[in-house]
Amino acid sequence: MAPRLKKAKTEPQAEAKLESYVHSRDSFKAVYDRLKEELLADEIMGSPPDFAKEWFSNVLDYNVPGGKLNRGMAVYDTLEALSKKTPGSDQIFKANTLGWCIEWLQAFFLVADDIMDGSITRRGQPCWYKKPEVGLIACNDYILLECCIYRIIKKHFAGHAAYMDIMDLFHEVTYQTSIGQLLDLTTAPIGSVDLSKYTLDNYMGIVTYKTAYYSFYMPVACGMILAGIKNKEAFKVAEKILLDMGQYFQIQDDYLDCYGDPEVIGKIGTDIEDNKCSWLICTALKHADKEQTKVIEANYGKKDKDCVAAIKKLFVELKMEERFKEYEEESYKRLTAAIEEQKLVPQAVFTIFLSKIYQRQK
Amino acid sequence: MAPRLKKAKTEPQAEAKLESYVHSRDSFKAVYDRLKEELLADEIMGSPPDFAKEWFSNVLDYNVPGGKLNRGMAVYDTLEALSKKTPGSDQIFKANTLGWCIEWLQAFFLVADDIMDGSITRRGQPCWYKKPEVGLIACNDYILLECCIYRIIKKHFAGHAAYMDIMDLFHEVTYQTSIGQLLDLTTAPIGSVDLSKYTLDNYMGIVTYKTAYYSFYMPVACGMILAGIKNKEAFKVAEKILLDMGQYFQIQDDYLDCYGDPEVIGKIGTDIEDNKCSWLICTALKHADKEQTKVIEANYGKKDKDCVAAIKKLFVELKMEERFKEYEEESYKRLTAAIEEQKLVPQAVFTIFLSKIYQRQK
Ligand SMILES: [Mg+2]
Ligand SMILES: [Mg+2]
Ligand SMILES: [Mg+2]
Ligand SMILES: [Mg+2]
Ligand SMILES: [Mg+2]
Ligand SMILES: [Mg+2]
Repeated sequence: MAPRLKKAKTEPQAEAKLESYVHSRDSFKAVYDRLKEELLADEIMGSPPDFAKEWFSNVLDYNVPGGKLNRGMAVYDTLEALSKKTPGSDQIFKANTLGWCIEWLQAFFLVADDIMDGSITRRGQPCWYKKPEVGLIACNDYILLECCIYRIIKKHFAGHAAYMDIMDLFHEVTYQTSIGQLLDLTTAPIGSVDLSKYTLDNYMGIVTYKTAYYSFYMPVACGMILAGIKNKEAFKVAEKILLDMGQYFQIQDDYLDCYGDPEVIGKIGTDIEDNKCSWLICTALKHADKEQTKVIEANYGKKDKDCVAAIKKLFVELKMEERFKEYEEESYKRLTAAIEEQKLVPQAVFTIFLSKIYQRQK
Repeated sequence: MAPRLKKAKTEPQAEAKLESYVHSRDSFKAVYDRLKEELLADEIMGSPPDFAKEWFSNVLDYNVPGGKLNRGMAVYDTLEALSKKTPGSDQIFKANTLGWCIEWLQAFFLVADDIMDGSITRRGQPCWYKKPEVGLIACNDYILLECCIYRIIKKHFAGHAAYMDIMDLFHEVTYQTSIGQLLDLTTAPIGSVDLSKYTLDNYMGIVTYKTAYYSFYMPVACGMILAGIKNKEAFKVAEKILLDMGQYFQIQDDYLDCYGDPEVIGKIGTDIEDNKCSWLICTALKHADKEQTKVIEANYGKKDKDCVAAIKKLFVELKMEERFKEYEEESYKRLTAAIEEQKLVPQAVFTIFLSKIYQRQK
């Protein structure tokens, strides 16, 4: 009788544990382990030799799970904000699965971006393509990373009412992000910069396409799809608000690169010497007179202390800090109004994001 | 009255023209022009600056339409072989649209492959990444090329009964092809080759995944989907036969590289000095004794006339030409038997392909 009693005692506890799901990096990462295992056992691969399997496994572990995971974890946050009762274990798993698909998408773009930018490190380790045994094989590895997304979606959503919508969303956001890269690469080609292209219009296009769609709109759109929202207007409203938020986030990033506390942001900004098409330089060029434009042309994008100092001095003259604070206040007001005005998406979906980024110092 | 009469006279003629569709490179290319125009006007891009649009247009024209177009044009051939009456203009357009999606897929993989292989020319012009203004921007351009596929499919097949199947097919074949690249790149990493990995098993895996799926199975599968075939067994049968045919095709390619007439194949083969994992070397290694293996180890993959001569001499010793002829006869018999044995797919679908490649000299 003892074992039976024991069983009766432990079972309800186990169930209670499942009901009180805690959304943490650890619980999110457990889903990665499962998805990776499934991919490595996927029969579509046939029976590849061990060295190929090992390579594939390394591509995943090195590039997918090591980020901040904010985007991936936001899918569940959105689903929860949209749900009247706590989501069931299947819904939780599906939300985190789509969250990982976003992380896979990001990994795919970051591996490619680092090759194109000639970057050295990423997330505190050498960029994947910089590892001596990898090199340009990374060009195929990021194709593999992207392919994983559709294997995962097929495995876990085939037959689901939203299968089509999920695939469409991933296709569209992938396209938008690569268009963002195209805008970025043609506005500021590595090694030869034409400041006449550094307009706020081009800047906003780059930021919106390269970052805002996949980082802000996509996690929320995934959560909305899972919550069963079908009204296309609701997605349009969310897109408008979240792209605005994504622009605001990137403009903060550019501001902090120049004016943030290196101790707090964890790095010393180098956008000025790196010739970056940042909000600060685009705004400065818009307001600069002929003399000031000449100062920018002579000093921007030079790896030289005095040049950087000349640009920073000009930023003071042009009141760039004040312009940013003004932009930030306007942004916040505009976002809050847009969030409150609409009735199609619960406000909490947006405010949890906005409260995390408004006036951030890092 | 005159205009009316004129109209009545010309209309039936116009219709007749449409009915007698001639499947040629020109009629196929007309579909490319339309698809390209649609992509450039696609509202998902927002309103990009002219320099970005121009770049995108150049990426397409330089990389997509300049190949042999055999794969793309085979979709219509398959559809015709499967149709009791001549396909209507909408079906013709859809077949050629999917054909172009295959050409887009190939363009995407070739741009990437040339970067990884450090190739210089492709289709008689510099590889895209080799153009001075392009360089590693090509890493994003091939992402764009892939994205086009799903924009085209969505535009022309959303709502179509086979929309899902078409997307699944393109996802699967993309994954299979990139797995083929992974097998290739890990079997024979550029610059450091381990001959113990040059087994016929690895060879067949590379060829099947890297080439046979997208070049042989995919065009036929697209035609079958458009013809309304739903029986999964029919696709399995076609896959088996077409992968076998794709392997045969690549093995011929490897044979011709060494034994073909340079005047006829249009190039001088360099697989031996390039250290290629070819059918000849894998088969030679399988049959070589210890002494002969040493000769291979000492001479294969060296850009030196004497080394190449030593390998060619060994190929004579090992009767490689005879082994190939034997393989070819067996292949042909096996393929013909497999085509005749099954009743799920009309034989013509396969025989038009097989007759084009059997005992080809180029
Ligand atoms: Mg970068
Ligand atoms: Mg970049
Ligand atoms: Mg920054
Ligand atoms: Mg190549
Ligand atoms: Mg290659
Ligand atoms: Mg060859």
